[in-house]
This record gives sequence, C-alpha cells and structure tokens, in this order.
Amino acid sequence: MVQFPGLEGVVAAETAISLVDGQQGMLIYRGHWAKDLAVYNSFEEVAYLLWYGKFPSANEYEAFITKFKKYRVLGVEEKKVLESLPLQLDVMSALRTVISSMSHTFTAWPPTVDDAIRITAMAPTIIANLNRRNEGVEFVEPHPDLNHVANYLYMLKGEIPQKAHVAAMNAYAILTMEHGMNASTFSSRVVVSTQSDIVSAICAAIGAMKGPLHGGAPSEVMTMLNGIGSKENAEQWMREHLEKGNRLMGFGHRIYKTRDPRAEALKTVTGRLASEDPWLDLAVYVEELAIKILEEYKPGRRLYTNVEFFAAAVLRSVEMPSTLFTPTFTSSRLVGWTAHILEQSQNNRIYRPQSEYVGEMPI
Amino acid sequence: MVQFPGLEGVVAAETAISLVDGQQGMLIYRGHWAKDLAVYNSFEEVAYLLWYGKFPSANEYEAFITKFKKYRVLGVEEKKVLESLPLQLDVMSALRTVISSMSHTFTAWPPTVDDAIRITAMAPTIIANLNRRNEGVEFVEPHPDLNHVANYLYMLKGEIPQKAHVAAMNAYAILTMEHGMNASTFSSRVVVSTQSDIVSAICAAIGAMKGPLHGGAPSEVMTMLNGIGSKENAEQWMREHLEKGNRLMGFGHRIYKTRDPRAEALKTVTGRLASEDPWLDLAVYVEELAIKILEEYKPGRRLYTNVEFFAAAVLRSVEMPSTLFTPTFTSSRLVGWTAHILEQSQNNRIYRPQSEYVGEMPI
Repeated sequence: MVQFPGLEGVVAAETAISLVDGQQGMLIYRGHWAKDLAVYNSFEEVAYLLWYGKFPSANEYEAFITKFKKYRVLGVEEKKVLESLPLQLDVMSALRTVISSMSHTFTAWPPTVDDAIRITAMAPTIIANLNRRNEGVEFVEPHPDLNHVANYLYMLKGEIPQKAHVAAMNAYAILTMEHGMNASTFSSRVVVSTQSDIVSAICAAIGAMKGPLHGGAPSEVMTMLNGIGSKENAEQWMREHLEKGNRLMGFGHRIYKTRDPRAEALKTVTGRLASEDPWLDLAVYVEELAIKILEEYKPGRRLYTNVEFFAAAVLRSVEMPSTLFTPTFTSSRLVGWTAHILEQSQNNRIYRPQSEYVGEMPI
Repeated sequence: MVQFPGLEGVVAAETAISLVDGQQGMLIYRGHWAKDLAVYNSFEEVAYLLWYGKFPSANEYEAFITKFKKYRVLGVEEKKVLESLPLQLDVMSALRTVISSMSHTFTAWPPTVDDAIRITAMAPTIIANLNRRNEGVEFVEPHPDLNHVANYLYMLKGEIPQKAHVAAMNAYAILTMEHGMNASTFSSRVVVSTQSDIVSAICAAIGAMKGPLHGGAPSEVMTMLNGIGSKENAEQWMREHLEKGNRLMGFGHRIYKTRDPRAEALKTVTGRLASEDPWLDLAVYVEELAIKILEEYKPGRRLYTNVEFFAAAVLRSVEMPSTLFTPTFTSSRLVGWTAHILEQSQNNRIYRPQSEYVGEMPI
C-alpha cells in the first residue's frame, strides 16, 4: 500500500537552506526573511547567502561578482550546441540541452560552489540568446558593466535597462530563488544522491519545472492584466469577469493560507516603483480594487494575493515574452536547486524507496 | 526528523511492472519470470510485455518490429545536434543531450507507448554513432534486416554479428530492462509527476544512472576477467588476489541474499554458448572455480554470483568498449523507465515530500 501518496508529509531531507511556512506566511532563506532580502539585497548577495550560508564580506563579494561575470560568457563549444538546436524546441528543453552538453566541464563529484555559480551565471545568457535566435536577431554577449539581473534584461532587448525594471526584476528573482522541497528540487536531490554530477541533477530539475503541475508561471494573471489594460477599465472588467462565473487570477495559494510573503515583498517593490512604470502602477491599483470586489462577491473568503499576481506585473513591465516566463523563473530557481544539490552531496544517502508489486504472479 | 533516510522502506508507488524479491531471489516482469524471458524471448517481445502488460499476437509483433525499425533511424535534426557535441563529452551525457534536443517531437502529456518505442529504438543508434564519432569512423545507419539487439552490435562494429553474441546480448538486455524502484526509475517518476514530458523524465533517469552509487556497470569484473585471461591462469590468479586481501568481483549483491535470478539466467545462456566464444567459456570456468575457492577462504559465507559477473563475460565477448557499459545498460533500462513513466502518468499524483528546516531563525 502506498502509505504516503505523492510522499506527502514524508520528510525527505533536513535542510538549512529555507523554511516555507504556509500557515504563518513565512519564507526564510538561511535565517533571513526572504521578503526583506528581496527589497534590500542584490541577486548575487542572496545567491551567496544561499550557497555559503552567510553574507559575503566586501572583498568576497567583489571576487564573487567577478566570477559571475566571467562564467556567464559562453564558450565556443556551448555556442555551437546552441546553434545546432531545432528552432521548434522550447526554451526550457533547449536550456537543458545546452547545459547537458557541458557535463564534462564540471566537477564529477562532489559538486562545488563554483559549479553552482557557473550554471547560474550562464543560464540567462543561454535563455536570452535562445530567444534572440528564435526572433532572428543576432547573438549578444553579456555586458561587462552590468550585474546578473540587469545583464539579463540587457541581453533580452539589447539595450541598457531602466533602473526601476532592474529593481523589480531583482526582487522577483530573489523571491523565486528557493522554495523548499518542491518536485524539481526533490528530483535534483534524487539524481545527485547517486553521486552523479551537478549537470545531471539540474537537467532533472529543469525537466520537472517544465511540467504544468509544478507551477510558477504567471501566464493567466498576465492575460488578465492585458485584458484590463488601464485603470479606467479595471472595475468594469473585473465585475463582468466575476459575473460570468470566472475567477480573478493571482489570488489564493496551495501552501500559503495567509499573506504570501513573496507577494507582500513584490507589492512593496511594485508600489515604490509604480510611478516609473505604467504596468506596475496598474498592478497596484488592480490588486486593491480586486480585493475589495472579491470581498463583496465572496464575503469572508479572505483570498490573499499570491506571488503570481505581482510577478505578472513585473514581467509585463519589462516586456518579458510569455515563452520566457518559466525559463526566467528557472534562471533564478537555479540558485535554490544548486544549494540543495550541494547540501545533499555534503551529507549524502542515495534515495531508494520501495515499490509495491500489484501485478500478477507467474503460474 | 528524517524518519526514513533515503526513503528506505517507504513505498513510493504501486506497480504492475515488476517484482524484485531479494530474499527469495525472484525477479518477475508482468507475471513472468525474467530469467525465462531472457532465455526464450526477444528484446522486442519483452519490451512489448513491459509496456502493454501482455505478449503481442503475431500481427501485433510484426507491426511493433516495423515501428522499432522506423524509429531507430535518426533524422537530420538529431544528427546535427549529435555532430555539434564536444568530443570530450561522455557518452551518457551526450545521449541525454541528443534526446533532450528532441523534446518538441514527443507528446506533451500524457506520454504514449509510441513515445516509449521511439526513445528505446533510437538510443542504440545514438550510442553506437557517438562511439564511432569518438573513434573517428563514419556514421553507420541501422541495418533494416536486423532486430534491435543484433542491429546495435552491427552499428558498433559495422559488421553483421555472430548469432551467439546476439543471443548473449539479447539475454543481457532483457535482464537489465527493469528492476523496480531504483534511483533512476524513481527520478523519472518524480519528473513526469509534474505532467512534464517523457523526454524530461528520461533525461533525469539518465543523469541518475550516471552516478557511481547507482551501479550496474561491470567494469571491475571485466578488469578481473582480463587479468585472469585464460583457464590455465585462473586458479593461481584468484588465490594470489585473495591472499593479498582483495575481493573477487562479481559475487554478492545488496538486494539478492540468495541466487540473483539474473545471474542464473545469464549463466544458462553463457553455458549454452560457451563453445562458441572463448570469453563465455572462460567465464563459466572461472565462476565455478571462484565459488569453490571462496568457500575455502570464507567458509559458510555463501557468496552468490551476481549479474555483473556474467554481464562482464557477455560484454567482453562482444568486445564492448568499457566507455559503453553504462550506456548499453541504459539502452535496455529505457524500457523499464518508460514503462514506469507510462504507469505513473496513468494514475498520477505529483511527488512533493517535505523538508525539515534545521537552519537559523531570523533575529
């Protein structure tokens, strides 16, 4: 008998990386509130924290940034593989394919923080250039003066991004870096538990993240925001939508039964930057109105805004194409996956559950 | 607290595909003894059994063989990716990379038996031609008159294989097709449980199989057989080896505490074919002698021959390069993985265990 369907409730690992507490609305990264990190820290600082368990000194941070910048440049071999891929291949599979082809350039066992930095640093270069290739525009090299998040936006569009957009994307990236033992993180721990390499574990996680049940892509909220289009339109649009029996997207969450701390943090950042971008401004307006209207239609239900709502606003503000939602989420989740891979390898035991045979016996 | 380290003892799924009973030395595929299937059936028949849960009729079998032959031919796109790969990339990673690049040509959800046939049919073509590329010899197309196993041997060497070698490899391939809920199979079920595609699940499994803790590659037995070299040499070599405090490889198993049914079946086949190949002949001789000598050195221990022992003999007889041991194992295990992926998708629930936070709390 399967005593724990989907392994629900089974503790598969102890971890010092993060705590997700949906009842209390807490998300903690290595002893720090994720919602604060997202507002006050850079992508690289939080990545350092998740990998090393502490913040870098000024010198360590400088060396770390230098590594990030070095590792994000693709070599001749990686470019050759990228250029060989079928154009119909989706970006997630293509990202996995390029990373898979570099296995020989990573540590066999155990994986190192340098391996983690390399994969994380190069992912945006691969994603942005896969997208450019699909759009028929030329390859763009990373910009040496820009840090991780700003450089990703730069490579996507080929122009230096606005500060407000960098700040919003930085917060989004930090808040999606890590979220406990979800299916993708778990799959990466299972793979590395055989003493396989970090590339193998990441290929597994990317594959799990591709699955629609994994979640995390705010496409439906984006469709809603696009449908609403302007503040003037908002109330009428939402009321008509609800009258037809439809749901408003971006409210309620499987785990968080109270405020989603990621939504809270993104709301703070979005609110601050609202005057600098019309989509951020619209999102702030729509959220407040939606909560008011929802309370009217479903009194007492207390539906909280989830991270997808503000994620959609942020991604819309930087004009992220919808084909890159999941890859962009992946590019920051790589930090969490690799932190778990390192943690697993430091105190490893192979994952080998049982199965129960319910087939026939030989005659 | 991690109540079940490595999830040992936790039933992660019910399965009608196979029963592995190490205490009683039983391996059952869909109600049939694997040891009998290996001796009396073809690779394709047993693959059909594992996927469909029954044997094919004559007509079904013919159509099935036709599909296998069609699907094993690589298209222009796959060849282009294969040719783009760095030569230093190991065959397992390269196999995963080529399969990963074909994601868009498979069913999104749910996976189909046709998807399973395609991946299984094409793997030997990819493996053999990766090896040929590394050896600097030209690409060889599958041979239209040969079935799966014979064609693999044909593509490796570029010549029609001997019947004895095909029979031995056929038995080896059937016996390595499936083995319950090991780490690679489990990783593929975790990935597909997010409703991701079969390609994503297989990429995870290949990565897990790469890990040295996964096991299955008989390299150490091969080194021993090569060291022994001839019947005349066998007794002295083994005694000297044991006197030095070394172990004889190919005896004892983590799961099987009695006869490993896979070893038994391969022994039957090896014994039958011994007169046709000197390495099979040597293996039969060494095994009997080794058991006698081990009983002398470790009386009462009752070390049973494991599948690696005869696997090494079979792989040695067909001159399989050691770099292809794990890929060859993988090419038959693809049947088991895909059978589990299909089973998981038919009664799916996402795998989402818990983790326990043992890090610090915010101040």
